[in-house]
Amino acid sequence: MERFLKKYYAITDRKQFKYDFEIQIKRMLDSGIRMFQLREKDLPSDEFFDLASKLGKLLSGYDASFFVNDRVDVAVLTGANGVHLPSKSIPIETVKHKFPFLIVGKSCHSVEEAVRAEKEGADYITFSPIFETPGKGKPKGLKALKEVVEAVSIPVYALGGITEEAIPEVLKIGVYGIAGIRLFIK
Amino acid sequence: MERFLKKYYAITDRKQFKYDFEIQIKRMLDSGIRMFQLREKDLPSDEFFDLASKLGKLLSGYDASFFVNDRVDVAVLTGANGVHLPSKSIPIETVKHKFPFLIVGKSCHSVEEAVRAEKEGADYITFSPIFETPGKGKPKGLKALKEVVEAVSIPVYALGGITEEAIPEVLKIGVYGIAGIRLFIK
Repeated sequence: MERFLKKYYAITDRKQFKYDFEIQIKRMLDSGIRMFQLREKDLPSDEFFDLASKLGKLLSGYDASFFVNDRVDVAVLTGANGVHLPSKSIPIETVKHKFPFLIVGKSCHSVEEAVRAEKEGADYITFSPIFETPGKGKPKGLKALKEVVEAVSIPVYALGGITEEAIPEVLKIGVYGIAGIRLFIK
Repeated sequence: MERFLKKYYAITDRKQFKYDFEIQIKRMLDSGIRMFQLREKDLPSDEFFDLASKLGKLLSGYDASFFVNDRVDVAVLTGANGVHLPSKSIPIETVKHKFPFLIVGKSCHSVEEAVRAEKEGADYITFSPIFETPGKGKPKGLKALKEVVEAVSIPVYALGGITEEAIPEVLKIGVYGIAGIRLFIK
């Protein structure tokens, strides 16, 4: 399972992309990213499914791992490696029980949520927002990130407001990896 | 499969309910309804999943059949009898291929869509809106309904703006059943 969890984890937001979807993803692949999450909350099911199929095909040529946000059905039906469950999601245990082959990630915003996610069977978590980032509330900071890393034994991805310059200090905390949206758009 | 497809098919919209969710559903059960679809488009995944679990449990005591709108994952994970796919949904064939045990319904608004849905493997369709109903566009009328019924060999449910008084004339067209939201809220 851990071979699917890479150090850098790109989460999509096509509205912030500077290029056409496929070209932007290829640019990320060219820069070395090998782990992606499709997160396009505004799309109806048909378009989200089509985009997931497209991304899955694109990534399979690169041995890059592929996660789908929230929609367990779309993850299963497009052959994704896993699903990333947001705060308000289907319970982790239910997903794991029915689809044991899916890697399950979970969004966490406190030590308590992180501990609970691990207990419920999450394979990795994101902890956010680390720094200031639009519309995501008060930043948690590196101290809280350290507490989370120490509280759980599953991989922790730091997410939210991380710039390229900040990557070294975040990695120093002992996180498994860095997740980001804008960070990887170039 | 046909034992799960009843003559009257209640689709939920809890915002229009006159009573608490559970009481309203029980009133429908008391009036003889034995086929339900949970359709609550505004709920985040966790609340939709919880409500689906609740409805599934409630209905299991009555041998009533239970469908989930759009979310194939929620249908599978709550043990629903089937999923009802709206216009902008995951493809029917993909769902049928992976989850052959699920009954799959599809929303149709023209003869062409109905024929395509049958070809793609839908087990039943709804055709709508038959009569005037808020926010659903121009009514199709009984003539178009008749064309749909004649064009496909799968069960057709008439949906949209049907009042109790209109039920006999709609049934005369040869539909399999009547679906409704407001129609069954009493």
